[in-house]
Amino acid sequence: MSEKIAVLTGGGDCPGLNAVIRAVVRSAHHKGLAVVGVRDGFKGAVEGDFFPLGLKDVSGLLPRGGTILGTTNRDNPFSYFIEENGKKVQKDCSGQILKNFSDRGIDSLIAIGGDGSLAIASQLTEQGLRVIGVPKTIDNDLRATDLTFGFQTAVETARDALDKLHTTAESHHRVMILEVMGRYAGWIALYAGIAGGADIILLPEIPYDLARVVQAIQDRVANHKKFSIIVAAEGARSQTGEMVIERRQEDRPDPIRLGGIGAKVAGDLESLIDLETRVTVLGHLQRGGSPNAFDRILATRYGAAAVQAVLEKKFNTMVALKGQEITTVPLKEAIRELKRVDADNQVLLAARQIGIKFGD
Amino acid sequence: MSEKIAVLTGGGDCPGLNAVIRAVVRSAHHKGLAVVGVRDGFKGAVEGDFFPLGLKDVSGLLPRGGTILGTTNRDNPFSYFIEENGKKVQKDCSGQILKNFSDRGIDSLIAIGGDGSLAIASQLTEQGLRVIGVPKTIDNDLRATDLTFGFQTAVETARDALDKLHTTAESHHRVMILEVMGRYAGWIALYAGIAGGADIILLPEIPYDLARVVQAIQDRVANHKKFSIIVAAEGARSQTGEMVIERRQEDRPDPIRLGGIGAKVAGDLESLIDLETRVTVLGHLQRGGSPNAFDRILATRYGAAAVQAVLEKKFNTMVALKGQEITTVPLKEAIRELKRVDADNQVLLAARQIGIKFGD
Amino acid sequence: MSEKIAVLTGGGDCPGLNAVIRAVVRSAHHKGLAVVGVRDGFKGAVEGDFFPLGLKDVSGLLPRGGTILGTTNRDNPFSYFIEENGKKVQKDCSGQILKNFSDRGIDSLIAIGGDGSLAIASQLTEQGLRVIGVPKTIDNDLRATDLTFGFQTAVETARDALDKLHTTAESHHRVMILEVMGRYAGWIALYAGIAGGADIILLPEIPYDLARVVQAIQDRVANHKKFSIIVAAEGARSQTGEMVIERRQEDRPDPIRLGGIGAKVAGDLESLIDLETRVTVLGHLQRGGSPNAFDRILATRYGAAAVQAVLEKKFNTMVALKGQEITTVPLKEAIRELKRVDADNQVLLAARQIGIKFGD
Amino acid sequence: MSEKIAVLTGGGDCPGLNAVIRAVVRSAHHKGLAVVGVRDGFKGAVEGDFFPLGLKDVSGLLPRGGTILGTTNRDNPFSYFIEENGKKVQKDCSGQILKNFSDRGIDSLIAIGGDGSLAIASQLTEQGLRVIGVPKTIDNDLRATDLTFGFQTAVETARDALDKLHTTAESHHRVMILEVMGRYAGWIALYAGIAGGADIILLPEIPYDLARVVQAIQDRVANHKKFSIIVAAEGARSQTGEMVIERRQEDRPDPIRLGGIGAKVAGDLESLIDLETRVTVLGHLQRGGSPNAFDRILATRYGAAAVQAVLEKKFNTMVALKGQEITTVPLKEAIRELKRVDADNQVLLAARQIGIKFGD
Repeated sequence: MSEKIAVLTGGGDCPGLNAVIRAVVRSAHHKGLAVVGVRDGFKGAVEGDFFPLGLKDVSGLLPRGGTILGTTNRDNPFSYFIEENGKKVQKDCSGQILKNFSDRGIDSLIAIGGDGSLAIASQLTEQGLRVIGVPKTIDNDLRATDLTFGFQTAVETARDALDKLHTTAESHHRVMILEVMGRYAGWIALYAGIAGGADIILLPEIPYDLARVVQAIQDRVANHKKFSIIVAAEGARSQTGEMVIERRQEDRPDPIRLGGIGAKVAGDLESLIDLETRVTVLGHLQRGGSPNAFDRILATRYGAAAVQAVLEKKFNTMVALKGQEITTVPLKEAIRELKRVDADNQVLLAARQIGIKFGD
Repeated sequence: MSEKIAVLTGGGDCPGLNAVIRAVVRSAHHKGLAVVGVRDGFKGAVEGDFFPLGLKDVSGLLPRGGTILGTTNRDNPFSYFIEENGKKVQKDCSGQILKNFSDRGIDSLIAIGGDGSLAIASQLTEQGLRVIGVPKTIDNDLRATDLTFGFQTAVETARDALDKLHTTAESHHRVMILEVMGRYAGWIALYAGIAGGADIILLPEIPYDLARVVQAIQDRVANHKKFSIIVAAEGARSQTGEMVIERRQEDRPDPIRLGGIGAKVAGDLESLIDLETRVTVLGHLQRGGSPNAFDRILATRYGAAAVQAVLEKKFNTMVALKGQEITTVPLKEAIRELKRVDADNQVLLAARQIGIKFGD
Repeated sequence: MSEKIAVLTGGGDCPGLNAVIRAVVRSAHHKGLAVVGVRDGFKGAVEGDFFPLGLKDVSGLLPRGGTILGTTNRDNPFSYFIEENGKKVQKDCSGQILKNFSDRGIDSLIAIGGDGSLAIASQLTEQGLRVIGVPKTIDNDLRATDLTFGFQTAVETARDALDKLHTTAESHHRVMILEVMGRYAGWIALYAGIAGGADIILLPEIPYDLARVVQAIQDRVANHKKFSIIVAAEGARSQTGEMVIERRQEDRPDPIRLGGIGAKVAGDLESLIDLETRVTVLGHLQRGGSPNAFDRILATRYGAAAVQAVLEKKFNTMVALKGQEITTVPLKEAIRELKRVDADNQVLLAARQIGIKFGD
Repeated sequence: MSEKIAVLTGGGDCPGLNAVIRAVVRSAHHKGLAVVGVRDGFKGAVEGDFFPLGLKDVSGLLPRGGTILGTTNRDNPFSYFIEENGKKVQKDCSGQILKNFSDRGIDSLIAIGGDGSLAIASQLTEQGLRVIGVPKTIDNDLRATDLTFGFQTAVETARDALDKLHTTAESHHRVMILEVMGRYAGWIALYAGIAGGADIILLPEIPYDLARVVQAIQDRVANHKKFSIIVAAEGARSQTGEMVIERRQEDRPDPIRLGGIGAKVAGDLESLIDLETRVTVLGHLQRGGSPNAFDRILATRYGAAAVQAVLEKKFNTMVALKGQEITTVPLKEAIRELKRVDADNQVLLAARQIGIKFGD
């Protein structure tokens, strides 16, 4: 009997999820493995919501954003909400996942997810589930891999926004602030900032001094540049202040963002400079849309590599990119360490060399 | 001696301003007229900040957003801020404009602006200035013309955002709300909503009943569509409620938008439906960027037509599009009437026919 | 019993076909009509290849290029290829279409097609078929309607190509020639040329004098512009020469285009000017891809209007755009007259005013 | 006295040239070095056509394609065309370059170019010129660096074309062939093919068997996929046949491409399969346009690294990307070795794993 793989997607949206799924199904088909999709992440795993995935189901999927499997980021099988006697209670339902897999003759799981989902997957390996992880973080902040799919597309979206803000900033003599994703690591801000011609970039890793931000703007004015572009990672903070970021929309029930770092910087600047200031919060636009060429390729490589890892029985690992090569790393270690923008990062240094300011 | 035209841009940013300027300069050159640019709208007109504009200055300008002339939307020559005895006072400086024009031998003014700037221009004609207006409103809400440049590009930007939000909405079973520009008229919301496959569109012209919005979402859930896309014009309001829109960022000193209609609808929905809700405020992204092909063509036609109107001495008019033809309308009347989405508008009716809901 | 509409697409590809189909299905659903799709144009009509089209089938269809119905441009029911006694013979199979419709209880046909497909549809009305036509021509060359869907997207694609060629032309001091569609009418060339900043536009309607083209290039060189951009409609021709266009790829069995007007102009110029010349033939890229916002809206309006016309029993008409309004025109007349770029066309005149040359 | 650097661009166009120039100027300014631009590559170097490059000259340059320095790919200083006694003769003018540099007090040269331009630069080092090379090849086929700027943008352009061709292929049941750049190495074809969902990719490195190409198409038809997408690098060839590629347009005086590999494959297929075949030659569109985010970043890093190399006196080297880091490699070695798609290349293997065929 042929082997059967399950595949699920967990956590926030990310361009390239469907491209990974497509590559998994196509590679598996090519090797004679069957694939079943798990609906809505670990929710479907607990509830046994599985469906067969064939070539036809993934036809035309490459350019499409989102995930045909659906996903949630609320359901943790280890403390799963169920109704008991008319009340909602939390229970460990991880055992149910293993039972469901066993009942359906599923041999292993390819879990495409961020640190949350992969941590759950890693825990499940301790109960005997055979897992291959595929890293998914729009923020590209996982130490175990050089690059995650979706990141380049998000940077492109932010770059496009900066191109748009640039002309208005220049015509209207304004300070335009673009707030992008990145709560703990400022990769999107750094890359989009360079690509979009930002003058000042504020990162979680480099607490800023407001006086230096003001100075940078005024130096430009003195140099006949009556406008400035600031890119702020949502997790950026001042040297003296608190992090103003509220919990990201992903994680909370109420959708209303009352004002993050972008609004704070704008408010702080208004009284100190003689230019108008405007804020744009890019938000979910960074997570959606058709993946760009490189994310499609990277996602495809990850999907193919995940199936390869199943075939080679390299379980409890995560596929990862190192330099130009895809390899596997132990799942447990992979999810442990955050990759932040180090002070000696070459890209950061290049940004400094061309005169971009970081408020430090 | 050859005739000399001045050209200025006023008000908020709009894709295509540079394309109009380029067409003015090229058409004028072709006819042997000289052109001078006025820096920063009516501010430059009062302060005599003029500079010659030749073919070389507009080379490469067609694809570029913004305006090389600069603009402000704070300066009204009829109550202009000047320093007198160390204090800021407001004074009527309109006479200075006529003096400046006369001193420089400038015969007429092509004013590219919205209702505010064109109203000023119209007032100046009463003092003897010879003016041709070019309509500029991203909202396309001017009755006197069928289409304003920049509108199509703004709709495209909003359509692109909706395409991006769509996949996330579907994958994550969410209600995604996109707030777009349109304080008094919902053209961007209506057009972008149709183009982006919105399920519900909220317009200033059609006060919504929250219960009907909820019903529309739940009808979709019943129909196995566990997500919905709502486009809300910033000026939309409920049947019972007040307009929640604050003054647009353009008009006010403080940059922090604490939450407009998008946030309100999201907040109201949260307790009434069982889906997560997320808001994206598109904001300034709608005003920036390279104009699309049709806005470049329309802007070029407006610019050429404005020079033609100067040559034909059709002063104190505004160029306007009627059907497929550019014509001129009296400036005074042109700025008077807002074009809103009427109940029998064909585009609105088509949206209703394909099942889009408006909350009424 | 509820009414049943068939819908088919015929002829070459065009962005927005799927958007029309979606609007037809959604509008019909809304009014309680059933819709069946006809596979591969009139081929499916003859062979009875029908399938029900429901809301689910058109979900997610709006942004997608192509047509889910399939299409051909080889099959004419009035001289249809069939096998008889092992030989291919041509026969009039139009009667079979009426029989198929009658057998399936189909009351009317919405035919989305170009002049070829609509001429067939018109002929079928004479046999009693009830038809509503939706005009489809990428070239926008139908007199009966102001605008056809797909045209704006094609212009945008050509504009994007011109933006790309521009920088290379300027950096490398070259004459770049872009050949675009338009065999009998130069609308794409004219619109894309203006939008893409072309210096010279060659149209079928304005036979060019090579000497004047050379002069225009040399005038630019004299003016320190050592590059020029030429847009040529495939049907352009010189005043003395023959039309060099071969039959469009659509129409012929062999796919290899040995060189159309672009290559001819390049060859002719090489010996006459001291700049390198390069040709790009845009070809099928103009027909594919996701429709832009305005084509999605226009296509949606056409689809909704076609269903409305069925309900109002306005058969044997074609939906058409006049100014801002959709209306219906008699099908027979609609397909009769080509809309070409007249000498007094305002867009053409605006192009001349800003100094674009047409070689005349 | 402060150091003075010259910068020139040579060879074909490539998105990101201006971004490198901007980064050179900004980094140099930051370090107190002066920069002069050399006009039109080595032509300007021989003729002493230099001009100062300051911050103002590179403002707004980041998103722009092309090169403000101009470039040619016809002029080799070692056999330079000059007029002598009314005749054109070829002479070694390399000494003039050194004299010009010395006369202007220029200390070193940053040469941004492909293998041709860098070979010239390398030869000039033997005469004492101090050179830092920046690799420029749209084809990404230089062994000494993992990635060249412009390549990702070219892949994106080809991916966009494939997305457009896809829908037409599917709707019209066609075989669509896209011919992309890559005479000796198939990187663009491989990457764009994966990203654009190609079914068959033809590379210079893997001579194809026509029978296997036909088989792949027929296997798809048997699987109810009545269309196929083929991407062919211009240097692809059949196992039996000759390379059909003519000299690339870059290299030759006549602009007319009579038919490369795309046309050949189409012609060969026509008689063997029952589907229509269409060819699109992407050509110069791959070289133009605004660089994408990652090429802007990579180009910026290269420019900053080149100035750094000047400061560290690492002359006669080329900046190169290895993994995630920019480093320097000896110029002489750098230009020697072509990087082709090896049989064990991971990206190639991933493509095979998901079922893409290469005709072998």
